[in-house]
Amino acid sequence: MRKTAIVGVGCTKVGEHWDKGLRDLAVEASLRAMDDAKLYDVDYVLVGNMMSGYLQNQEHLGALVADSLGLRGAGAAKIEAACASGGMAVHIGCQLVASGSADSVLVVGVEKMTDATTPEVTKALAMAEDQEYSAYMGASFVGLNALVARAYMRAYGVKQEDIALFPVICHKHALNNEFAQFRFPITVEAVMNSPIVADPLHLLECAGIGDGAAAVLLMPLEEARGASDSPVEVLASTVSTDKFSLHQRDDFTSFRATRASAEAAFKKAGLRAEDIDVLEVHDAFAVLGLIALEDLGFAERGKAADLIREGGIEIGGEIPTNTFGGLKARGHPVGATGVYQIVELVRQLRGEAGKNQVPGAERGYAQNIGGVGTTITAHILGRVD
Amino acid sequence: MRKTAIVGVGCTKVGEHWDKGLRDLAVEASLRAMDDAKLYDVDYVLVGNMMSGYLQNQEHLGALVADSLGLRGAGAAKIEAACASGGMAVHIGCQLVASGSADSVLVVGVEKMTDATTPEVTKALAMAEDQEYSAYMGASFVGLNALVARAYMRAYGVKQEDIALFPVICHKHALNNEFAQFRFPITVEAVMNSPIVADPLHLLECAGIGDGAAAVLLMPLEEARGASDSPVEVLASTVSTDKFSLHQRDDFTSFRATRASAEAAFKKAGLRAEDIDVLEVHDAFAVLGLIALEDLGFAERGKAADLIREGGIEIGGEIPTNTFGGLKARGHPVGATGVYQIVELVRQLRGEAGKNQVPGAERGYAQNIGGVGTTITAHILGRVD
Repeated sequence: MRKTAIVGVGCTKVGEHWDKGLRDLAVEASLRAMDDAKLYDVDYVLVGNMMSGYLQNQEHLGALVADSLGLRGAGAAKIEAACASGGMAVHIGCQLVASGSADSVLVVGVEKMTDATTPEVTKALAMAEDQEYSAYMGASFVGLNALVARAYMRAYGVKQEDIALFPVICHKHALNNEFAQFRFPITVEAVMNSPIVADPLHLLECAGIGDGAAAVLLMPLEEARGASDSPVEVLASTVSTDKFSLHQRDDFTSFRATRASAEAAFKKAGLRAEDIDVLEVHDAFAVLGLIALEDLGFAERGKAADLIREGGIEIGGEIPTNTFGGLKARGHPVGATGVYQIVELVRQLRGEAGKNQVPGAERGYAQNIGGVGTTITAHILGRVD
Repeated sequence: MRKTAIVGVGCTKVGEHWDKGLRDLAVEASLRAMDDAKLYDVDYVLVGNMMSGYLQNQEHLGALVADSLGLRGAGAAKIEAACASGGMAVHIGCQLVASGSADSVLVVGVEKMTDATTPEVTKALAMAEDQEYSAYMGASFVGLNALVARAYMRAYGVKQEDIALFPVICHKHALNNEFAQFRFPITVEAVMNSPIVADPLHLLECAGIGDGAAAVLLMPLEEARGASDSPVEVLASTVSTDKFSLHQRDDFTSFRATRASAEAAFKKAGLRAEDIDVLEVHDAFAVLGLIALEDLGFAERGKAADLIREGGIEIGGEIPTNTFGGLKARGHPVGATGVYQIVELVRQLRGEAGKNQVPGAERGYAQNIGGVGTTITAHILGRVD
């Protein structure tokens, strides 16, 4: 099994890109990653995307993006795993390198959501859940995550104000991220006073709707040393799944797939949680950020809010988390999110995170969730000395 | 790089399954493959599918199918490459085994098309082509393939009656396939007298709309020898792409991606066209079958009809092709087609093809196309002695 390295990264700003189509965004992010690596020819193009069939009436994105980049002949496919499409595309990209089939893989995550109406996007998001059971019964994706928040608060006596700490930190981190969708500070009071989207979730604890694309270039580690000044090694890339829907599970306050993918990743990398210097978690809803900190071993069950209150997830804290703003503030263009996380970890490990640089960051971890804790990918990246 | 073997295969009948949903079909085919291999636990589930987001409003099929099979914890993703989704899913499954990440992979292709209206399916199929250029201009998928037929006939002086030979053979082969959608014989006259779908394509030279699922179980070859009485080795699994749309290309009568994927596959397997005993080609439209025979080296340019007329693609002929009926007669449930091809080759190589058995078949080749010759996968399978 060959080791994999990331030699180039790039992304677009997350936002309302009314002047750009799905393909434009994917191409923009890809070209930035290619410029970063000075590598313009690849063996494969994998596109992480969830909603293009429904929202853009366009499938076959793999070949579409490959051709738009002038990469005739490259292998190409779209990889879909709901909101974990990006992380899954990176995972499969690593397999193509590890198997020896590819010496270079471009993975680009892309989603374009703001051209659609809110009901259309709500319907598209519900496709991450069981259409014939959950969605048919009227359970929206936000509604299901509201159940998670309610169960979590009840199980551990956590208050809504405690959960609201998470997006406050995310927005603080996004202030210095030129690619972030929401670059303004918020307060716990602002979160609590924002409208309820699905009780008990407030608007400011939910990731918004956005367009964006992010890309990474993968190569075998051995070749990457020559091709890049600052390759980053993929120390582990794993995935696990859980029972598909929330109503099938015993516990809403912890995700088995986070724990299983993390255990496998830490084992593969020969590391433990305390070895991680910078963390990206999938905070599509703030409560998911807290649960992730606990599932990954950075806080005890029900105690994540204490860690956050003590500054533990800020730059300079115990485990700096979502240092570019996370899903809440950087933005959550669904199929792109898992790739944005990898791009951001690479920037930290290369020392290119500017004002949000985690000093001496050597190892990063990214958690990307599809569905309500259903499909979860784990990536551990490490600086190559 | 570990070698990959197929240890189990299964499929549903292709047809109008009004009593079964997308997940039911995927589960039925998967369980048959599992029963065949006596293997009920796998590391990954890959689902080849194109249209579920648009037609069923259901994404996240990887985890959905994994959970429906009781495979909690398995890695899972949907793989999409238009009509080559199935072949691409098999290709990526092979990478997971080759990389050492998986000791067992279930690949299931599934599509459910008959619940939708004809305009809906026509729209869904057009998502394989460029929505913003071709589809927006009113070019349906059938219309684009009609241009291919017209160009092919003009370039080589081939008559419609010559092309009509291909579906006649497919229907003949399907008579003995209990899983085929159309089990009745047709004649060249019947093809020529059937309604025009898009000039010059007649109804009986176009694959129909159908529901179906097919599944294969992959393992490392070394372990497969112990796990199965009759493992089949994947000697090569490759993919290539071309310029995305027909209007970008110089030549409509030959597909670069077929030639490139075949060249790579033959090289990897250390074989040549004449070493292949049984062939599956992607005859979504009859003319594509002829072009494939030529692109793969089984007939000279413009001469495929001669080969067919001489019985060359029938059982006992030079290169028995689509021996279970092909897309035309077995059926073409889009995302499942590439997996059906693999299932059928395995049945031939194991000597389980019944009345359509190719005597002594040792090596098979499958070509699966996404778009109008855009993404093309190649698989060469070989009997393990």
